[in-house]
Amino acid sequence: MNISPWRSSLNDALNCNSSQPHSRYFQLATVQADGRPVNRTVVFRGFLGDTNQLKIVIDTRSQKYEQILHQPWGEICWYFTETREQFRLAGELTLVDANHPDPELQKARQSTWQGLSDNARLQFAWEQPGEARASQDTFSPPSPDPVNPLGNFCLLLLDPVKVDHLQLKGDPQNRWFYLRGESEIWSTVEVNP
Amino acid sequence: MNISPWRSSLNDALNCNSSQPHSRYFQLATVQADGRPVNRTVVFRGFLGDTNQLKIVIDTRSQKYEQILHQPWGEICWYFTETREQFRLAGELTLVDANHPDPELQKARQSTWQGLSDNARLQFAWEQPGEARASQDTFSPPSPDPVNPLGNFCLLLLDPVKVDHLQLKGDPQNRWFYLRGESEIWSTVEVNP
Repeated sequence: MNISPWRSSLNDALNCNSSQPHSRYFQLATVQADGRPVNRTVVFRGFLGDTNQLKIVIDTRSQKYEQILHQPWGEICWYFTETREQFRLAGELTLVDANHPDPELQKARQSTWQGLSDNARLQFAWEQPGEARASQDTFSPPSPDPVNPLGNFCLLLLDPVKVDHLQLKGDPQNRWFYLRGESEIWSTVEVNP
Repeated sequence: MNISPWRSSLNDALNCNSSQPHSRYFQLATVQADGRPVNRTVVFRGFLGDTNQLKIVIDTRSQKYEQILHQPWGEICWYFTETREQFRLAGELTLVDANHPDPELQKARQSTWQGLSDNARLQFAWEQPGEARASQDTFSPPSPDPVNPLGNFCLLLLDPVKVDHLQLKGDPQNRWFYLRGESEIWSTVEVNP
């Protein structure tokens, strides 16, 4: 596959903003069954192997799991506060849950689980997200197995087909569209901000 | 109307993060005509008078204007980096463009225009956003009238019906849902993060 031209700009942004932990957070928009948008902050977990697919982890008990089953499309909005630039990445979403049949993706699901911190893994053993607050002791369950993911752990992939890169620094601002065409060949066009 | 209970938490977050200019930026998700989500960073311009409606400014030439005409619903995701907390605000969107018939909202549109910086107003006189990059001189047009908005200037309002407040600090994290019921009465429920 082709490493796309926007990857070098995104890598630069990640490097230049790396002193700030929130530089690895972005907002993922999806659509719920009634056609309304939903938006939440998630953590960037790197790219899947040598592909352009962004890795995110989610809980199958969360509402976004059902939303993505219904409409497997998302748009990431990623604003870097230090360099004042934004990447918007739109693409198809793939849910790699415990039942996904692809053995390579199951390996990726497992290695992603293994790469999480103990605290991040622990959250998958908490009570049902969004339900009435459970008692304090339920938030200190036994630590999950660090090797084999819990059944509700899901790897989520976003495979971009369009990237919109805006730099607010610059006078005027700079903006580029990157579009994926046939055979994963990307085209780049500089546009008005 | 009732000032809702989430407003004091949001005001606290705005105060505690005010040293960072990006604390007034948030991500607005909408839905385009094909049912796919769209997500971008916009600037918080305060509340409309004594209501709970959040003010945003947009260009009627931007794609979000058409998207919102088609699906007037949005969700804001607002992450505060200093205090490590997130507000998600879902609600109906109202486009107050030059043709909106309500004189009070036209006044709000005009006063919001007057409250913008010269640079922010200038962007409404730039060439069509998202089109192939225009020549450098087109980005230095004559300064628009600071009193009367340009025709493509649009005030956008989001009227929340649900707010989801998550604090990452805390062990475990804290999370509340605020729901608007009849007669703008809000209910609050503490939930699992």
